Amino acid sequence: MALKQKYPKDSAVTMTEMVLPNDTNPLHNLMGGRMMHLIDIAGAIAAQKHSQRIVVTASVDNISFHQPIKLGSVITLQARVTRAFNSSMEIYVEVFAENLSMESKILTNRAFLTFVAIDQAGTPINVPELLPETEDEKKLFDGALRRRQLRLILAGRMKPDEATELKLLFED
Amino acid sequence: MALKQKYPKDSAVTMTEMVLPNDTNPLHNLMGGRMMHLIDIAGAIAAQKHSQRIVVTASVDNISFHQPIKLGSVITLQARVTRAFNSSMEIYVEVFAENLSMESKILTNRAFLTFVAIDQAGTPINVPELLPETEDEKKLFDGALRRRQLRLILAGRMKPDEATELKLLFED
Amino acid sequence: MALKQKYPKDSAVTMTEMVLPNDTNPLHNLMGGRMMHLIDIAGAIAAQKHSQRIVVTASVDNISFHQPIKLGSVITLQARVTRAFNSSMEIYVEVFAENLSMESKILTNRAFLTFVAIDQAGTPINVPELLPETEDEKKLFDGALRRRQLRLILAGRMKPDEATELKLLFED
Amino acid sequence: MALKQKYPKDSAVTMTEMVLPNDTNPLHNLMGGRMMHLIDIAGAIAAQKHSQRIVVTASVDNISFHQPIKLGSVITLQARVTRAFNSSMEIYVEVFAENLSMESKILTNRAFLTFVAIDQAGTPINVPELLPETEDEKKLFDGALRRRQLRLILAGRMKPDEATELKLLFED
Amino acid sequence: MALKQKYPKDSAVTMTEMVLPNDTNPLHNLMGGRMMHLIDIAGAIAAQKHSQRIVVTASVDNISFHQPIKLGSVITLQARVTRAFNSSMEIYVEVFAENLSMESKILTNRAFLTFVAIDQAGTPINVPELLPETEDEKKLFDGALRRRQLRLILAGRMKPDEATELKLLFED
Amino acid sequence: MALKQKYPKDSAVTMTEMVLPNDTNPLHNLMGGRMMHLIDIAGAIAAQKHSQRIVVTASVDNISFHQPIKLGSVITLQARVTRAFNSSMEIYVEVFAENLSMESKILTNRAFLTFVAIDQAGTPINVPELLPETEDEKKLFDGALRRRQLRLILAGRMKPDEATELKLLFED
Repeated sequence: MALKQKYPKDSAVTMTEMVLPNDTNPLHNLMGGRMMHLIDIAGAIAAQKHSQRIVVTASVDNISFHQPIKLGSVITLQARVTRAFNSSMEIYVEVFAENLSMESKILTNRAFLTFVAIDQAGTPINVPELLPETEDEKKLFDGALRRRQLRLILAGRMKPDEATELKLLFED
Repeated sequence: MALKQKYPKDSAVTMTEMVLPNDTNPLHNLMGGRMMHLIDIAGAIAAQKHSQRIVVTASVDNISFHQPIKLGSVITLQARVTRAFNSSMEIYVEVFAENLSMESKILTNRAFLTFVAIDQAGTPINVPELLPETEDEKKLFDGALRRRQLRLILAGRMKPDEATELKLLFED
Repeated sequence: MALKQKYPKDSAVTMTEMVLPNDTNPLHNLMGGRMMHLIDIAGAIAAQKHSQRIVVTASVDNISFHQPIKLGSVITLQARVTRAFNSSMEIYVEVFAENLSMESKILTNRAFLTFVAIDQAGTPINVPELLPETEDEKKLFDGALRRRQLRLILAGRMKPDEATELKLLFED
Repeated sequence: MALKQKYPKDSAVTMTEMVLPNDTNPLHNLMGGRMMHLIDIAGAIAAQKHSQRIVVTASVDNISFHQPIKLGSVITLQARVTRAFNSSMEIYVEVFAENLSMESKILTNRAFLTFVAIDQAGTPINVPELLPETEDEKKLFDGALRRRQLRLILAGRMKPDEATELKLLFED
Repeated sequence: MALKQKYPKDSAVTMTEMVLPNDTNPLHNLMGGRMMHLIDIAGAIAAQKHSQRIVVTASVDNISFHQPIKLGSVITLQARVTRAFNSSMEIYVEVFAENLSMESKILTNRAFLTFVAIDQAGTPINVPELLPETEDEKKLFDGALRRRQLRLILAGRMKPDEATELKLLFED
Repeated sequence: MALKQKYPKDSAVTMTEMVLPNDTNPLHNLMGGRMMHLIDIAGAIAAQKHSQRIVVTASVDNISFHQPIKLGSVITLQARVTRAFNSSMEIYVEVFAENLSMESKILTNRAFLTFVAIDQAGTPINVPELLPETEDEKKLFDGALRRRQLRLILAGRMKPDEATELKLLFED
């Protein structure tokens, strides 16, 4: 039986959190590890909604941290599936922060993660195909191949000269 | 006044944790986000010990997750500074897991993170130079430049053709 | 200086959470108190965004719990301001749940809460007026007076025969 | 087989907690949602002791929050069953707070909750009848019917003109 | 100014907790460390109530763990001051557990702890004298000297032959 | 089948933690109960590694707390098995703390705990014999008998005059 195709909007997730004391360092700023934890949960929920399966984190790409986020700030995570590959899904998460005095929120982090859908025995299982709709979604869909090759090279499972898609990164 | 030079062993950190129910997914395996959180804490402690300053996470490189780690398993994180650059430090974290029936522990994750030392006002501040001693430490020290260029490219702050060190990665 | 008027959409909050082991009872269902905690946080974030002030919970109205929500389910909380009164705001929170096998999420809880905006000394401080736009928002705005009277009666601070708005409830 | 009758004192619960940093807002006062969580746990323990069954929260009535409770304060929750109806129980919880400099504690919150006893399959199951002993217990026992009607009206499951007991509230 | 004298009942504490998943080991029994944590909190609250000061744990005596306590059980901690010495107080904590099917609770642990009252600068500060009233309280009051000598010997701060009170232990 | 003999180093555990806000009292110092919790976890991991079984805490000996440990400090726990008795193991835990400005860490706590290895039914099960190697390990091994007698006396399960080993304590 063929799996239903799905759109990014079908599994898009918005997650909002308030920065609490235990999430912060001695300067009262959000700790990076707590942020990673939230990014993973937001991504896992999107992947679970797309696949309607239990999912496990397979990888997280490079994440940078630029601005300190103060205790009491509100952070909003937006997660959506960018592409599905057999049993795995790439998820894109954007993190926005706003404190009390801000009129608008600012983008503080961006992350790409991959998750694998598994059955009750822990065996990978196929997931629905992803159909990008908007321009933005199509761009993320196309870039997914290139990011996948970079992951394989960094994991030592692909030779750089085989990474035909990755060369686009270096020619941008 | 010149800062004292330090060796990797001066700030090496071993962190051991037991996987508790709230760290696990419905199949009773450790969730990726919780692992990332632990990796960040281990790395931050090593960076804090090297710099004797408050540190903030600046970036985490690609992390892969291969084996499921069961509820009740013991995980051990080894973190050490690989190189210092002005106010930032690269930290290498290895994660090992062992469950009840295992005779020996297995390497489950590897991660490189960078931290920045800051003063009470949040301003970056210089840290001691790192002096690698062993062959392994020297190899990590040398690779730090290459990984730094990859981070800058991925963050859009360096052009690929300027990344002289990174080419070594593609020629390995 | 007059405070800026604001629309409900300016402070609407979507909060998504995964039900973790520690949130559940021995039958692996979400505990009511954990749900209340999440409802309060979602409401507080909406009130904080509307007022751009620290807010404190002043009251929560009757909440019913109908369906068990299983471990591993995803719950989504939607919070929005329904009306502002000087320093206080009424917030409406809807909770939806979906488990792995569900095609769509179901409404599991509804709650009205009030929050008061305070300054750094803890003194109540005026908040922007709320301007309802949609039919739904106008209905919630109008009902806010009636719910307020019921709260005052239940708190023993208004006599039932003075509750002119509340009579509408008994005539619906 | 008839279930044993029980007295309120048989299942009365006293719960004491210290307000910790993660329970507080940026002004270092206990957050409402954390208080609701504690009220639910205290009530659930009383209901579990009365029924000797797993219990689930069915509803919580209006709760007001008047005084800020500071970090480091001690809060004491008193919970007792007020009346049993087939498989459900109404519980009354009073919350007292005291800080370091206080000679005596003050009543900060009052709440009525209902819990349902269930078996391992999640099916509601009858609970022992409650026998009030003191004047105070008898008053709470009598008021339980009136509060129950208000809950049914608020949940849209009873018409106001059928609420014969509730009229007493408006005539008090 | 002389400090007010106080009775044990003035600061007696009852603390009730439900055993949650994260408190348990893989056999779903309460972990010893979580129990110790609760014992310390109950003791600290009693010491804080007696002294109306911030208190810090100075020592905890030998604790034994006999019965497994299952997930979902209710545990009740009773803490009371047994004797005050200048700035320190000895506290006695008894822990009772009951699960769903139990008619009555059983005593599972007993512990003696000492706490020191400190001012805002962290300096020890005198506490009110304790006046035992009941036979049980007087016995605990008298035994406090003997337990104190044993602590001093175990900490290497008293020679065994100076422990005149401790000999009573060996002659019991 | 005879169980394999093991050395202390085979199950030695190093655990590093950063003191977070929720671990601290209103003066921002680590609370004793949190420290006890960490000591128990470190000890349990060592006992689990030695026995390759689920373990439960059987007892913890007297622990003293001397220095305040500040928020943001790094604490390191070293746990190792000192001796095995049939199904039980004695574990020795040392705790070191260092804050940002310290050049070296200081010993803040020492604790002896006993754990029992159990099978899936909760029945005690034999563990490997411990073979001490170094002088320090042999001293801890020898002292284990004496400490065991003190525990039995304190638990009322041995008469003081039978405690032949314990007399060494009083003659030291």
